[in-house]
Amino acid sequence: MSENSKIGTYNFVAEPFHVDFNGRLTMGVLGNHLLNCAGFHSADRGFGIATLNEENYTWVLSRLAIELDEMPYQYEDFQVQTWVENVYRLFTDRNFAIINKDGKKIGYARSVWAMINLNTRKPIDLLAMHEGAIVDYICDESCPIEKPSRIKVANTDPSDKLTAKYSDIDVNGHVNSIRYIEHILDLFPIDFYKTKRIRRFEMAYVAESYYGDELSFFCDEVNENEYHVEVKKNGNEVVCRSKVIFV
Amino acid sequence: MSENSKIGTYNFVAEPFHVDFNGRLTMGVLGNHLLNCAGFHSADRGFGIATLNEENYTWVLSRLAIELDEMPYQYEDFQVQTWVENVYRLFTDRNFAIINKDGKKIGYARSVWAMINLNTRKPIDLLAMHEGAIVDYICDESCPIEKPSRIKVANTDPSDKLTAKYSDIDVNGHVNSIRYIEHILDLFPIDFYKTKRIRRFEMAYVAESYYGDELSFFCDEVNENEYHVEVKKNGNEVVCRSKVIFV
Repeated sequence: MSENSKIGTYNFVAEPFHVDFNGRLTMGVLGNHLLNCAGFHSADRGFGIATLNEENYTWVLSRLAIELDEMPYQYEDFQVQTWVENVYRLFTDRNFAIINKDGKKIGYARSVWAMINLNTRKPIDLLAMHEGAIVDYICDESCPIEKPSRIKVANTDPSDKLTAKYSDIDVNGHVNSIRYIEHILDLFPIDFYKTKRIRRFEMAYVAESYYGDELSFFCDEVNENEYHVEVKKNGNEVVCRSKVIFV
Repeated sequence: MSENSKIGTYNFVAEPFHVDFNGRLTMGVLGNHLLNCAGFHSADRGFGIATLNEENYTWVLSRLAIELDEMPYQYEDFQVQTWVENVYRLFTDRNFAIINKDGKKIGYARSVWAMINLNTRKPIDLLAMHEGAIVDYICDESCPIEKPSRIKVANTDPSDKLTAKYSDIDVNGHVNSIRYIEHILDLFPIDFYKTKRIRRFEMAYVAESYYGDELSFFCDEVNENEYHVEVKKNGNEVVCRSKVIFV
């Protein structure tokens, strides 16, 4: 298989209700598109959620890091490319490029996924699955952004609290991965987004939360432009952590 | 122009992050798709927002009513059709049909729009615009659901309050029309959605709200399956009203 045929390319347009007050695509919507592309790309290669579910397996997103020079503007066409960078026994790295209307790469993303057994919730050995077929999709394409990093948050005084509602819940009964992104970005006052933009955004998904869970948001200001956020459910259990770097 | 060519048809798929815990497309996402279709259809006919903005005009959504037999399920393809039913001096009625993967009409929607001058915020005479060209698009297609109705709410004790945040705000600086739908549907406990589904949903948009506004949600239970909701900003001014009918 040529390296090119291992890359999936998907077309989008920045819809009016998917942009923020600056007219730029929101990070939550971009995250949604990236995860959809991961779904399309893996489904086309026999590793989609629908197929996996028949074997009682599913993909679980562990890390996501997005880094951008600019966000698509309202009504602009853009593309997302995705490919598999590495496959380990328990994790696989999937990367993305975001390409603007003029064909210029304006950003990249990295994601880390595990596969679990839906009954036992235990991880699956990816290299043993389908006789190791997944390694055929590994692609040598550059992704010139840093890997997701370790995020630590010291603050014990929550910036905000909310209760997970109907709109937050996905088909698995969990608060959906994209909603966390929106809730975390809502911690920052709108003035931030008037003078800065997000250069890098990271998520580490640690545990699931459910309808009715009280989510608390703890935030460390590491420096003027870098914030680390931890989300806990019901007072103590960490659900996810995030790093937001403005420029 | 034949009646058929006056109908715009647009293809969608129910994406995984666009469905609720039942695996059914959310009303907010469907509303988003309908408004996008309105945008595509009017843009193709010279009445799109981009063109209007050059003349300092824009469309304002006044009413939306959606009635459905079922919602598309996760990963299912579906279509939205839209056409102009009526044009009056100050309003135009645009209707929609929602068509499932098997080509069956599973629902309809009605919307009412005004056009305003962005500087004066005053309404424009639609029949005088572009020498009345808009009436050429009027289409005689059936839309067998009731028109949006008058909604009154008596309750003065709010069910919920929230402050409009970054994610709520659109490119015009207003809380976006779709977010109101999500916030209103979040008023109902998840058990509602376990045993019932929304048969009809109505929105009447009355005034704009902005970043930092405190939104209060007042709800009348008209009967076991019918709820009327009023959203006020900062304690007194009505922003929108909604009718939610479950089955």
